[in-house]
Amino acid sequence: VSQKSVYLAGPEVFLANARAILDLKIALTREAGLMPIAPGDLEHPKTDSAWELGLAIARIDEQLMDSADAIIANLTPFRGIAADPGTCFELGYMCAKGKPAFAYTNMRASNFERAVGYYDGKVVRDEKGLPRGPDGIMIEDLGFADNLMLHGGVVNRGGAVVVGDAAEAERYTDMTAFTQVLEIAAQKLR
Amino acid sequence: VSQKSVYLAGPEVFLANARAILDLKIALTREAGLMPIAPGDLEHPKTDSAWELGLAIARIDEQLMDSADAIIANLTPFRGIAADPGTCFELGYMCAKGKPAFAYTNMRASNFERAVGYYDGKVVRDEKGLPRGPDGIMIEDLGFADNLMLHGGVVNRGGAVVVGDAAEAERYTDMTAFTQVLEIAAQKLR
Repeated sequence: VSQKSVYLAGPEVFLANARAILDLKIALTREAGLMPIAPGDLEHPKTDSAWELGLAIARIDEQLMDSADAIIANLTPFRGIAADPGTCFELGYMCAKGKPAFAYTNMRASNFERAVGYYDGKVVRDEKGLPRGPDGIMIEDLGFADNLMLHGGVVNRGGAVVVGDAAEAERYTDMTAFTQVLEIAAQKLR
Repeated sequence: VSQKSVYLAGPEVFLANARAILDLKIALTREAGLMPIAPGDLEHPKTDSAWELGLAIARIDEQLMDSADAIIANLTPFRGIAADPGTCFELGYMCAKGKPAFAYTNMRASNFERAVGYYDGKVVRDEKGLPRGPDGIMIEDLGFADNLMLHGGVVNRGGAVVVGDAAEAERYTDMTAFTQVLEIAAQKLR
């Protein structure tokens, strides 16, 4: 039986211990009976400039996604209240390819709750009942883990978004939610 | 001659004056000789719950993207230092469809400069010369407007990322960079 492969999208490529965390995710993916495909950001091709390097890594990661059967995206908020932009791009990319998509986050607070926190709770409802910050900007209040395109893109394709609750210090290294979503993905991809 | 259509991705759907700003972008797109396709977040389908509403809007926006020939993504930082996660998803979605992609931002500060600001300047280079915040997390230093998947995805497809410099109060309403990227898109799509 040929194994299904999953692209492991997430901001862990930026961690000081990126190699160790990616290796752990790779091992857990294999244990779940799936073939891991990890982003190539760690292997830097030789280029003439930082600009060319960035373009080359983007091409490599797209090729890796093209070679994968599915995606598991780590939507844990990154340097702020939202998922890593590169991971959001990659989730959209795989959804467009019609490939099964799964996601997880290590933060329990919903997209709505995090935005309320961003505004220090100073959120009011407009005449239509929509919550808005002091800047007038609307907040999605849908019970989703992040923006509706992300959460919706996964759920609309029959995938799952697993919400974990890691300690602050283990925000990017806790594997509880990842292990849970791996199980779901392995079952759906079988 | 049949006009090429562009999907207008961006966080302006969340503004208090979303309708007015979208109408302005729609008018400018028509003036540039392109057919505007705007996200459907403003027209709320009837659903039984907020959850179903979110899923329905995600489906509608995907269908709108499927109907468009190209995308122009507004990557202006949103509630933090990064582009709106929904816009990132949509840019990845259109790149995966092989459609021409263009982007702009109304903030001059690069992805690197914004991350340095996030860390209050407390950024150090590791033994490999990579810049990292006090949390050990690496910062891309590529001269890009946002994460390399976004900027790279656009440039690798022959598109352009136009960097504007709007006043704080006009961060989401200034049309200078959008007008410039519209001209580039119109020329490339001709």
